[in-house]
Amino acid sequence: MKAKLTFLGTGTSSGVPMIGCNCPTCSSGDPRDKRLRASVLVEYGGLSILVDCGPDFRQQMLRADVRHLDAVLLTHNHKDHTGGLDDIRAFNLLEAKPMNIYCEEYVETSLRREYSYAFDEHKYPGSPEWRVHRINGREPFLVHSNANEDRLVWESGFGYRHEAPSQIPAREIPAVEVIPIQGWHHKQKVLSVLGYRFGNIAYLTDMNLIEDEELEKLRGVEYVTLNCVKRTQHHSHFSLPEVLELFDRIGAAHSYITHLSHGLPRHELFDSELPEGISPAYDGLVIG
Amino acid sequence: MKAKLTFLGTGTSSGVPMIGCNCPTCSSGDPRDKRLRASVLVEYGGLSILVDCGPDFRQQMLRADVRHLDAVLLTHNHKDHTGGLDDIRAFNLLEAKPMNIYCEEYVETSLRREYSYAFDEHKYPGSPEWRVHRINGREPFLVHSNANEDRLVWESGFGYRHEAPSQIPAREIPAVEVIPIQGWHHKQKVLSVLGYRFGNIAYLTDMNLIEDEELEKLRGVEYVTLNCVKRTQHHSHFSLPEVLELFDRIGAAHSYITHLSHGLPRHELFDSELPEGISPAYDGLVIG
Repeated sequence: MKAKLTFLGTGTSSGVPMIGCNCPTCSSGDPRDKRLRASVLVEYGGLSILVDCGPDFRQQMLRADVRHLDAVLLTHNHKDHTGGLDDIRAFNLLEAKPMNIYCEEYVETSLRREYSYAFDEHKYPGSPEWRVHRINGREPFLVHSNANEDRLVWESGFGYRHEAPSQIPAREIPAVEVIPIQGWHHKQKVLSVLGYRFGNIAYLTDMNLIEDEELEKLRGVEYVTLNCVKRTQHHSHFSLPEVLELFDRIGAAHSYITHLSHGLPRHELFDSELPEGISPAYDGLVIG
Repeated sequence: MKAKLTFLGTGTSSGVPMIGCNCPTCSSGDPRDKRLRASVLVEYGGLSILVDCGPDFRQQMLRADVRHLDAVLLTHNHKDHTGGLDDIRAFNLLEAKPMNIYCEEYVETSLRREYSYAFDEHKYPGSPEWRVHRINGREPFLVHSNANEDRLVWESGFGYRHEAPSQIPAREIPAVEVIPIQGWHHKQKVLSVLGYRFGNIAYLTDMNLIEDEELEKLRGVEYVTLNCVKRTQHHSHFSLPEVLELFDRIGAAHSYITHLSHGLPRHELFDSELPEGISPAYDGLVIG
């Protein structure tokens, strides 16, 4: 089964440009050098799946005119990947459905702390409606369509009431299998980060180490994305030499770099120096 | 002392347009109908003061080309007013200074839960550097220039080291006095919200009740802003009749409405129906 992936954001945690920065990358007029925080939209098996939901989520949804999402997959618990989850409220209202969120247990723990109001039994009216699915990061898991979820009924001043879905869902779409690839944000394996494989496309970001057995899960992908913030060694991201070596080992026909900072050259220059088949991603790029 | 205020965002918690909405307000081509989350920049006594730091903070700083901030004042602890605080990191880097944040104790408690990593003794490198000042909401307080703050020295892979400031600060700017006006997000007085008066300008949002003795603190202001999400009764915001009555009681020469939703008419239509001296604010509007 083939997937289609749209890059909604390809920037590092600060985005590009950096606030107040006059460097050549930050002052570039090329729209490909305007990078929101890293996030992708994947269309796979009839489902619309978002990977990561950073602070630019609303802006990204408006820009790409996204009007339907079945699920959000989180790679890890950093704010540039989770900071927009309150804005899921817009989809609760638009689709009258809670949002399925898939993440590791430690990420759920962070969400319960950082968005405690979304987990209250008696919620503040208008709080986001999520259904969190814990995944273990080592085994394939199923992502479900939101068609069978409860229907949300808004009661002004009180919030949402949940109604069991009618027996015939509006859209009968089978769940899709997604393969997580576990990596680490630091070589010391402090923070687990999940990449995700959707058939022929794999999207991995915010890693600094991937073990060999996890790399095996990328065998045969056509498209792969990895992260690189800057050329040289970084405490929590691949350097450029590391990422090029990994692309070589993975051997996908098309390899993309995401999570770029202003420390890398402008898109056009950076693209021209990379080997055949390897490109910097940019916001709005569609692959697959 | 006169202040100048720039509206950086004038939208309700979802912003305008709402994701996926085709209503007349959301599909308006008028840039004044594009409303980011409520936030203002106040220039007062030589200081640059931000009120609220929602999820659009980065976008707002880039759009208004803000390159210096002395402090952030928070009105309350809702995500549309605090969700961008991680992005304060950009100013830590740009100015090599921690950011002064002024808020009530219960807001600080929320920040400590929602941004726990910003309060760790041994921080994750690149975490925001804040200095939180607790204010009691009933008494005037001083907002300080960041000139006397520690200097932050970035040590790659380890994070910031704090260095005591040199004895001669780069800019000698005296602190300014700000008057908080306490209101309530609900008529039941569940959640305290602070408005702020900067000399001739007062900015209040997210209220549904202001008691008479607090209203007294607005006596003599030239410019005042209050919140209205929609025309009719709302569980946590003023209705249009309520806000018009309050403007009348306050008697400022110029009154502005902020925190607007798509439930209100397009800017031009809404403006034309309001009494003389009362206008909807819009993103980018400068007053004072």
